[in-house]
Amino acid sequence: MGKFDMRKVGIIGLGHVGATVALDIVQGGFADELVLIDKKSEVAKAEVYDLWDSLALQPYHVKIYAGTYADLKDADIVLSTLGHIDLIKPGGDRFTELRANAPEVKSVSEKLNECGFNGILIATTNPNDVIVDMYSKYLNLPKAHILGTGTYLDTARLKRQVADCLNLDPRTIEGYALGEHGNSQFAAWSTVRIGGQPFVEIAEKKGISLDDIEEATRQGGFAVFNTKGYTNVAIAAATVGLMNLVFSDAKNVAICSHYDADFGSYISTPAIIGKDGVEAVVKLPLSADEMVKLQASANEIQDKIKQFS
Amino acid sequence: MGKFDMRKVGIIGLGHVGATVALDIVQGGFADELVLIDKKSEVAKAEVYDLWDSLALQPYHVKIYAGTYADLKDADIVLSTLGHIDLIKPGGDRFTELRANAPEVKSVSEKLNECGFNGILIATTNPNDVIVDMYSKYLNLPKAHILGTGTYLDTARLKRQVADCLNLDPRTIEGYALGEHGNSQFAAWSTVRIGGQPFVEIAEKKGISLDDIEEATRQGGFAVFNTKGYTNVAIAAATVGLMNLVFSDAKNVAICSHYDADFGSYISTPAIIGKDGVEAVVKLPLSADEMVKLQASANEIQDKIKQFS
Amino acid sequence: MGKFDMRKVGIIGLGHVGATVALDIVQGGFADELVLIDKKSEVAKAEVYDLWDSLALQPYHVKIYAGTYADLKDADIVLSTLGHIDLIKPGGDRFTELRANAPEVKSVSEKLNECGFNGILIATTNPNDVIVDMYSKYLNLPKAHILGTGTYLDTARLKRQVADCLNLDPRTIEGYALGEHGNSQFAAWSTVRIGGQPFVEIAEKKGISLDDIEEATRQGGFAVFNTKGYTNVAIAAATVGLMNLVFSDAKNVAICSHYDADFGSYISTPAIIGKDGVEAVVKLPLSADEMVKLQASANEIQDKIKQFS
Amino acid sequence: MGKFDMRKVGIIGLGHVGATVALDIVQGGFADELVLIDKKSEVAKAEVYDLWDSLALQPYHVKIYAGTYADLKDADIVLSTLGHIDLIKPGGDRFTELRANAPEVKSVSEKLNECGFNGILIATTNPNDVIVDMYSKYLNLPKAHILGTGTYLDTARLKRQVADCLNLDPRTIEGYALGEHGNSQFAAWSTVRIGGQPFVEIAEKKGISLDDIEEATRQGGFAVFNTKGYTNVAIAAATVGLMNLVFSDAKNVAICSHYDADFGSYISTPAIIGKDGVEAVVKLPLSADEMVKLQASANEIQDKIKQFS
Repeated sequence: MGKFDMRKVGIIGLGHVGATVALDIVQGGFADELVLIDKKSEVAKAEVYDLWDSLALQPYHVKIYAGTYADLKDADIVLSTLGHIDLIKPGGDRFTELRANAPEVKSVSEKLNECGFNGILIATTNPNDVIVDMYSKYLNLPKAHILGTGTYLDTARLKRQVADCLNLDPRTIEGYALGEHGNSQFAAWSTVRIGGQPFVEIAEKKGISLDDIEEATRQGGFAVFNTKGYTNVAIAAATVGLMNLVFSDAKNVAICSHYDADFGSYISTPAIIGKDGVEAVVKLPLSADEMVKLQASANEIQDKIKQFS
Repeated sequence: MGKFDMRKVGIIGLGHVGATVALDIVQGGFADELVLIDKKSEVAKAEVYDLWDSLALQPYHVKIYAGTYADLKDADIVLSTLGHIDLIKPGGDRFTELRANAPEVKSVSEKLNECGFNGILIATTNPNDVIVDMYSKYLNLPKAHILGTGTYLDTARLKRQVADCLNLDPRTIEGYALGEHGNSQFAAWSTVRIGGQPFVEIAEKKGISLDDIEEATRQGGFAVFNTKGYTNVAIAAATVGLMNLVFSDAKNVAICSHYDADFGSYISTPAIIGKDGVEAVVKLPLSADEMVKLQASANEIQDKIKQFS
Repeated sequence: MGKFDMRKVGIIGLGHVGATVALDIVQGGFADELVLIDKKSEVAKAEVYDLWDSLALQPYHVKIYAGTYADLKDADIVLSTLGHIDLIKPGGDRFTELRANAPEVKSVSEKLNECGFNGILIATTNPNDVIVDMYSKYLNLPKAHILGTGTYLDTARLKRQVADCLNLDPRTIEGYALGEHGNSQFAAWSTVRIGGQPFVEIAEKKGISLDDIEEATRQGGFAVFNTKGYTNVAIAAATVGLMNLVFSDAKNVAICSHYDADFGSYISTPAIIGKDGVEAVVKLPLSADEMVKLQASANEIQDKIKQFS
Repeated sequence: MGKFDMRKVGIIGLGHVGATVALDIVQGGFADELVLIDKKSEVAKAEVYDLWDSLALQPYHVKIYAGTYADLKDADIVLSTLGHIDLIKPGGDRFTELRANAPEVKSVSEKLNECGFNGILIATTNPNDVIVDMYSKYLNLPKAHILGTGTYLDTARLKRQVADCLNLDPRTIEGYALGEHGNSQFAAWSTVRIGGQPFVEIAEKKGISLDDIEEATRQGGFAVFNTKGYTNVAIAAATVGLMNLVFSDAKNVAICSHYDADFGSYISTPAIIGKDGVEAVVKLPLSADEMVKLQASANEIQDKIKQFS
């Protein structure tokens, strides 16, 4: 103490997602120092002012400021929340954003390298798997220290959809949405259980359509986006959730977009998350059909990466 | 249990403030049942979907749904977060909104009366003092059960400004911004202390301008609004803070806009907040000068009320 | 509001468990009104004073007092934390306590009936399954409104033991310890998974002894008790966890001791917990071997019940 | 990350206070790594096991283990919670403990020096002011990095007593109990305010005896101790409260026992607490009478120090 700083977090990109991540962190006391950076510095400042105005009312103190990349030299975690969701038209594809986000990701990476950032980067920027791949190419960091929220969010959406069908608490559903954080993702039904029971059996008995749930999960973001023009609550909760697993060195099996050597690609499969980022990959016992889908999703991601490189 | 519901909250108006209030409540587990209502039902639904998508990731469960006024019959607290901040031009006045908000407040009140709502109403809608006055005229509720966030927010802003000058935790500053949640508000310097020391003495020693701080407090919202187009973080924290004082029957001396018989007006002065809403008014030992300012602020509020009735 | 009280909780028995439950509730803001009752009223008062002394430092306000049974008339949840753990000798059996606890449970039940308590009762008192059975016979409440912490605690212990072997976050382990909260309990290995992988396969590969883990789980309490003379942290967390599921009407699949018609006995199997207590029983797809063990455990509980009735 | 550890806390002495501090930290997620040390290693282990058993049920992950002093080399904060409260007889004096605690404090200091601990030490060990003085003499740390909970606890007790008289939330009371964490402490009535009103005026109007409140504050610990045989809830909340101010570098004006050059003694007066420990001393505008009492209290502490050196 006095010697060094505690939990220091940088947020790059103060759109709706970045701003909500900042709010969640401050309300929960999940960081001790929070550096907000936006290419429009007045945007970061406005967010800082609103957060400052709340500090007298918060249970925990957080040091918050609009910073520069130099402030991230000793950051523990940087969250890439930049994006151009405004470019996506209702019903659109996350890849519409790529053209705008790609050069910014390159620029952010160069600045992070320049300042000597040596922590963990967690990206929500879309298309998520392509973006984390870019970060891994540009950043002077081990691949394991770069992760994307990926289908951590889609898995939460899948749990919600399953829970809705059964009038249950979404936290009580086990299982995963795998693959791309995009259209080629899929619900790995063999992994979905409630109280130990395979959901496929429950669904069959009750006449619940798995395809409908899977599609609702995949379209979950758009159901919100088409009205609000963005999504922020759930993606922010996912980002902060992963961040907390890293800070507490939890060794929690969480799904996120990470480099999976089996697929030669960033893609969302379960991994053990701790202070070294992605500390190990967990092999799910998938069905043959699911393995095919997962490979196809990896191919889809790789195609997009090639297309844009 | 089984017999009745626990902490049931309605949020009316799902703009940025209402949405952020909902997020704060869900992240903190501050309600057990949360009913979202917006005149555009798809807006409430989009917010509900985003919150639902986060439920698998939240520490507490909250039952959330897009409801109707009938669902508020047995609500304990209703939060009026409706507004038309989009109508305000940068640098503008909160009264610009009144023309749009007034008929909605009337309509909301009629629906709340009709459904038999019999709890506590906390309004953030602006111009706050005029709006709570309207609610008190329209709603079949005791005046003590209707309160506005008023200068609870401005007081937090004042504490932040004072804290900034001294590099201190805003929570460690005592004191109040009094009067209208609007231009006639003022910092009651005689009440502002740090560690028991009057801030006026500290300011004098250090050459800090009280007027600058007061103006920064008054303009705090606009510093955020002029860039973001709205404010949400601090006002949401204020709203949820007051709500929690009611739910826990805290008997906390908090400042908010409530009916103060001395001024014959809704206006922000400290009051004791508990499950009966505003349970008592606290008489601040103000200076003669401050008393004049407070009366002037009350007059200003009354003028605006007359002008619009 | 004003009309009725929010989350009102009674704690009966202010030994180490009851006191820790009270502390957890106050620190987390999980109740609005907390009534402490002990047969020695000075014990309840001492605990109340210590909690009161902390209130200026807590993030949330809770109304706390040493009460009488009349105060529980409108309680939502009553927690039976009474016990005589001091009677158990190191390495001993939970049934040693029964002789002392049984008459108190009868007396508590009579007083709860007399005051008209009509909420949910959650018992930690041991031997847990026998005690909840007693409460169900004595109390004028539906069986579904009476539950015991049962193997909710042992399941947490099982997760810890499995997590320890693999250096993982205990929260990331799925599965259940089933049956009696006592010696006839067992780890239902067919339900234990990490990231979707059956733990039995992992254990086999790594040469981990399932029997050792099961025994460590069963003896978990004694590992603490033999030194401390009691256990409180984990059992309090389990109690408060179940309580929060009821308050928030979570419909979470949680394991606890509840009446399971299949076994004609209170016993711990997964159930859906909501504001109506045990709202449904979840049938685990157990192996034939596990079904035998579960029936044996139910028989063990019934034997003990007969022995003491 | 990967490079260094986050919030690392050592707790020395796992009696009721140390154990409750550990519980509060784990429930609140206030540290990432928690090292428990007791001269009886089995006591630390029993506490660790009970905490581990709760981890599957906690909202945050914390790495907890029974450690040695070598583990504290890179600890950020060490909490001295050792004590021999069992030696105090009902109604007794905190100095009864000194004879037993003093040699342990010396031994702990030597081990902390040896391991190279270079963080902040917060002591609850009693008699608090004498103990922190000892630590400051033995430890190779700046005086500002050593603090005692002192009258942070008594101030919370004072607020509770005042709040009780007025049926208010203790958090809403401002003011301080000053001086020794012992019999020579006193309520600095000139600092006690509610909603800006001096409490002395309110007390006069309502016929409340200031002396009774002051005595109840001073005897607050014994009201609990005489029945429980120890106090833990409020003192643990005070300890964790101060710890969080340091971790978040809050610059909060808090009262604690720190070295005050004006009195040439450790003594409780308000100070600014941040990551450098006691970053500045705050001069209260006390009455002449209160200044005399404060000096007398400092003299009392110095007398005791001389007596035992």
